[in-house]
Amino acid sequence: MSANSFGERFRITTFGESHGPAMGVVIDGCPAGVAFDEALITSELARRRPGSSPTDSSRREPDEPELLSGVFEGKTLGTPIALVVRNRDARSSDYDELRNASRPGHADDVWRDKFGHSDHRGGGRSSGRETLCRVIGGAVARMVVTSVSPTTRVLALARQIGPFRIEARTPPALLGPATQDSPADAFVARLPDERLSNSVSELLLDAKRDGLSYGGTAELWILKPPKNLGQPVFRKLKSDLAASLMSVGASTAIELGDGFDATDAEGTDFHGLEGESGYGGIRGGISTGEKIILRVGFKPTSSVLDVAKKGRHDPCIVPRAIPVLEAMTWLCLADHALWTRSDRL
Amino acid sequence: MSANSFGERFRITTFGESHGPAMGVVIDGCPAGVAFDEALITSELARRRPGSSPTDSSRREPDEPELLSGVFEGKTLGTPIALVVRNRDARSSDYDELRNASRPGHADDVWRDKFGHSDHRGGGRSSGRETLCRVIGGAVARMVVTSVSPTTRVLALARQIGPFRIEARTPPALLGPATQDSPADAFVARLPDERLSNSVSELLLDAKRDGLSYGGTAELWILKPPKNLGQPVFRKLKSDLAASLMSVGASTAIELGDGFDATDAEGTDFHGLEGESGYGGIRGGISTGEKIILRVGFKPTSSVLDVAKKGRHDPCIVPRAIPVLEAMTWLCLADHALWTRSDRL
Amino acid sequence: MSANSFGERFRITTFGESHGPAMGVVIDGCPAGVAFDEALITSELARRRPGSSPTDSSRREPDEPELLSGVFEGKTLGTPIALVVRNRDARSSDYDELRNASRPGHADDVWRDKFGHSDHRGGGRSSGRETLCRVIGGAVARMVVTSVSPTTRVLALARQIGPFRIEARTPPALLGPATQDSPADAFVARLPDERLSNSVSELLLDAKRDGLSYGGTAELWILKPPKNLGQPVFRKLKSDLAASLMSVGASTAIELGDGFDATDAEGTDFHGLEGESGYGGIRGGISTGEKIILRVGFKPTSSVLDVAKKGRHDPCIVPRAIPVLEAMTWLCLADHALWTRSDRL
Amino acid sequence: MSANSFGERFRITTFGESHGPAMGVVIDGCPAGVAFDEALITSELARRRPGSSPTDSSRREPDEPELLSGVFEGKTLGTPIALVVRNRDARSSDYDELRNASRPGHADDVWRDKFGHSDHRGGGRSSGRETLCRVIGGAVARMVVTSVSPTTRVLALARQIGPFRIEARTPPALLGPATQDSPADAFVARLPDERLSNSVSELLLDAKRDGLSYGGTAELWILKPPKNLGQPVFRKLKSDLAASLMSVGASTAIELGDGFDATDAEGTDFHGLEGESGYGGIRGGISTGEKIILRVGFKPTSSVLDVAKKGRHDPCIVPRAIPVLEAMTWLCLADHALWTRSDRL
Repeated sequence: MSANSFGERFRITTFGESHGPAMGVVIDGCPAGVAFDEALITSELARRRPGSSPTDSSRREPDEPELLSGVFEGKTLGTPIALVVRNRDARSSDYDELRNASRPGHADDVWRDKFGHSDHRGGGRSSGRETLCRVIGGAVARMVVTSVSPTTRVLALARQIGPFRIEARTPPALLGPATQDSPADAFVARLPDERLSNSVSELLLDAKRDGLSYGGTAELWILKPPKNLGQPVFRKLKSDLAASLMSVGASTAIELGDGFDATDAEGTDFHGLEGESGYGGIRGGISTGEKIILRVGFKPTSSVLDVAKKGRHDPCIVPRAIPVLEAMTWLCLADHALWTRSDRL
Repeated sequence: MSANSFGERFRITTFGESHGPAMGVVIDGCPAGVAFDEALITSELARRRPGSSPTDSSRREPDEPELLSGVFEGKTLGTPIALVVRNRDARSSDYDELRNASRPGHADDVWRDKFGHSDHRGGGRSSGRETLCRVIGGAVARMVVTSVSPTTRVLALARQIGPFRIEARTPPALLGPATQDSPADAFVARLPDERLSNSVSELLLDAKRDGLSYGGTAELWILKPPKNLGQPVFRKLKSDLAASLMSVGASTAIELGDGFDATDAEGTDFHGLEGESGYGGIRGGISTGEKIILRVGFKPTSSVLDVAKKGRHDPCIVPRAIPVLEAMTWLCLADHALWTRSDRL
Repeated sequence: MSANSFGERFRITTFGESHGPAMGVVIDGCPAGVAFDEALITSELARRRPGSSPTDSSRREPDEPELLSGVFEGKTLGTPIALVVRNRDARSSDYDELRNASRPGHADDVWRDKFGHSDHRGGGRSSGRETLCRVIGGAVARMVVTSVSPTTRVLALARQIGPFRIEARTPPALLGPATQDSPADAFVARLPDERLSNSVSELLLDAKRDGLSYGGTAELWILKPPKNLGQPVFRKLKSDLAASLMSVGASTAIELGDGFDATDAEGTDFHGLEGESGYGGIRGGISTGEKIILRVGFKPTSSVLDVAKKGRHDPCIVPRAIPVLEAMTWLCLADHALWTRSDRL
Repeated sequence: MSANSFGERFRITTFGESHGPAMGVVIDGCPAGVAFDEALITSELARRRPGSSPTDSSRREPDEPELLSGVFEGKTLGTPIALVVRNRDARSSDYDELRNASRPGHADDVWRDKFGHSDHRGGGRSSGRETLCRVIGGAVARMVVTSVSPTTRVLALARQIGPFRIEARTPPALLGPATQDSPADAFVARLPDERLSNSVSELLLDAKRDGLSYGGTAELWILKPPKNLGQPVFRKLKSDLAASLMSVGASTAIELGDGFDATDAEGTDFHGLEGESGYGGIRGGISTGEKIILRVGFKPTSSVLDVAKKGRHDPCIVPRAIPVLEAMTWLCLADHALWTRSDRL
């Protein structure tokens, strides 16, 4: 696999610098005959877009994807599916001042040391803008997975934003037999808890004004996943999920089920609770069909330190990461769903 | 990459069922000319071997590796390096009773559902015995990395065993300018804290007698890693490390640096501390040359529930996982060290 | 590697249906710091373009490549390089009549059977138009190879068109110490023999008028290739070259050096001649630095049978295949040139 | 894919130097539940073994494969299948004289230049002995293919040995509705033509005595292949077959169907004949289910020049290459047969 590809059987390859002409993704390995839902791509891109709430970074771009290949008369052809999104906001002159400035916490100097040549305009490939390619790929992956497993759902939410945290094991917004898509989207910072909304809102608005930023925790629920996903040794489903989620910028921690909370547990009690805790969902590296719960920790965004960008920065990366985490999860599921087709004669 | 391979440039492929004739590993992509240190393989296998402490599982096998290819006159040839270890203790008759028994928490039934055909003798590929192949591969990876970066060190230790935890940010055993290899090995359960040793020892001996088991946390220190390791988007060093560590059985959580502790941090303070916390070691997915600290959470081993095996089980998997985690880390480092050779013209 | 990717270290992924919106290529694994020569891409695309001679198919499209990523201030960034070419001539209404028509010799029905869903407009991915992505990739590969080995040259020519064949072992156009790029381009059908030009021209014009088509043979000369390219077992340089050249449509045969002519040779004489015959260039699967000569056989193009397209068809595919064969060769060389960087410590 | 692996979905990784302790192969990606036919491996190894005819090289080794993993109670487990064959004849002292001798036509000096360190004992990895791993892998691949397509057959034969050549389009030995396995094995040098047998026998015995060697041509018939194998752009079935066959030592040319004979054909006639000529079997890179015919040219073996080995050398490589070519073909078929499982929804 090359550095800009993800997946073995269902594979995305992404390209584009944040201030170059365009971002794009090529999806190879998508089976023919999948009903192609362009509206899903548009709506997922809208969910990812900065500027959709007062606490988000203010860069606004329409993010209109153009479909270049792989789909004909509403269905996938089995050929590579390519989509491109233009960068409208790419005035590199704004960034000339950045040419020689090292931004603390940013990857620019690391990049320069590694490649000997780098794009000083807004982070290049290490910019958050790269994630729109993942969101597109994830939407197509979802089309594939739900074609074969229509009840599978992937829901992410903010469980913690700086000092505020939902304590209930199951956030109320996820209760009920027919949970909607994106139930967290209706809440401030995608943290689905009415009682915390005011506090979170205040925290983030203050942070935006003062140039502060906060870490947080996202939680992922995979409901009714296809079973038998994952390979038993190196390509365990948990291993691929961890890789995919840790490939998202600023992520610093991954927990499956109760994760670190399980480290002081005693086994006899613990194993009785596996289903409850979301552990039951992956055993021996392979999905059982039960729900899978993951948590992803994020450190505070670093752009806050850049005084010139105060007011344009994201005071917490977690809300915007939600659709990206869902996308990476769908990509893992699609890849492994295709893989299972050759598990047995 | 196939299901039983790890790495792109420096790649191991492992094989063997725990109760079949042998385990083995093929290492492809190792450059020619690396001085081959067979003694390192032997000593790492000894560190991994069960039965090396009173609290370990009592299965004892000598684990004598046989080198079948890839080395000539003390140096690697650039051809695949294959090593095989015989399974001496493979009396499958002992396991006939297990043929139709589902072991709770074990992967057997999952496996049976996925592949339609399985090896009921002791877990097959999902057995912990498979990790000896990783340890061999990791030792060769270490030979490669230290050939180009002699001061690089990888040290793992138990930070927590059930209720007992080292609280100091830097465990005392890691202090000092010339930290030895495997400083934790001298301590009970590889938890390098004199004051906790008695308690931990008691906990584990009681657990062994009573058929109990505990989760725990391992900590990994990568000292003076080569810089520029990792690719900026999907193959971030943190992403590959997460995949590699989550491919170890019973692991449930990964933290880079302060991980979840950073999720409630405010950024201005936090970024000043990055070097201190071990975060500084990976920026934008790429190693900076500074130390990298990771923590891996493990759930309680499941074998405790198998009454027949009481007294033969591991009351906590963490101590035995230590050399495996180190091995997976060396594998990541070697893979990325070779990758950097084509980063720039 | 996915179905639409070529190369391990220097990898292109191509996309686009001939009558969809655009064709494109993503190049991953190109080192940073390579001077980027856009003019080379333009000129290679011009060489590939149909309609550049009276005997070529008459579809004319400007083929203006748009560079979307991977290059900044004239040098590669080490990030994926994406280029897109719009399909200007994509009026699918012209092809509605083709919807249910099976074109003998074309891949349409095979495709329909395999994927269950296909693009009836002009061949989709199996169209010759897909080769423009390879030509772009090959041009970038050439920039990489010649950065490290400036004297390396790849020259292809038509050795045979239907009944006419250059008999001289070394075509006169390749003689001389300073062979120009594309020496065959100045000749009818890229068959560099003055004496045959009139006959070849007549043959092809008649064929075009009468709806006939001819097979032929292309010859590839790799002059001063970097040495040590190729891996000794499965990824021999000759194996990868064969795969790359046989991936070009209508190719049916590959010869290295004297190929089939060597099959009735006796060895003692033969090995004395290796350097002369172009065999010396690859030994044990690895390039020696001496010149490498390959021949590629092509069957008659099938489109001749499509009466509606008479006069628009290519009476012989070989002349147009020349730049594509060169491109595939550069891709192999670049891939293996990067690979050699980890051959030894 | 690493240098010593072949295949994407059904993948073999081979290891072993000819004078090291053992040769071996790991097969990853084989589905679970395939009935495992060890006798097929043994009989294919016997077919590959040198010394089975008076004209073959005289090195004799029993080649007893030991199955180390992946099979349980007669069926594949879905885990890696590893087999090892000991090198009984590995007395490196015999080869000490070779340490500094460059053998003309051999790959030793190329290897030394590439890797900086090499195994002077009999060719190391570039020895013909490496092919036994391919034969084992091919036998397992055949088990997979014939599990899903029981009537598929792969038959290879010598069509030409030095100056002697079977002229009939279909060799008589292949006629008849129920062609046996390996019909050519009953003939001198696997060239199935009674009338040529005496001449071929005489040629090879003389060559052996006089230290001469000859090139030749093998022909491969794939009868009733599964249809839909191959991907349309880079992973065409013909492309992968070419790579696989050109990875066999001393091969210098590949023809699909009439290959170079088709290069002077005119298309209208030609396409009427495709089924007859064996071209019909691959269209647009994809198998149609019709028979596929390939020819592989070999140059004279080089070992003849090594005076010390006169009388031990193979005067023509083609007869011994026959089972290897069949094995490589089965490997391609198995790989693509698994690949087709994700072609469509």
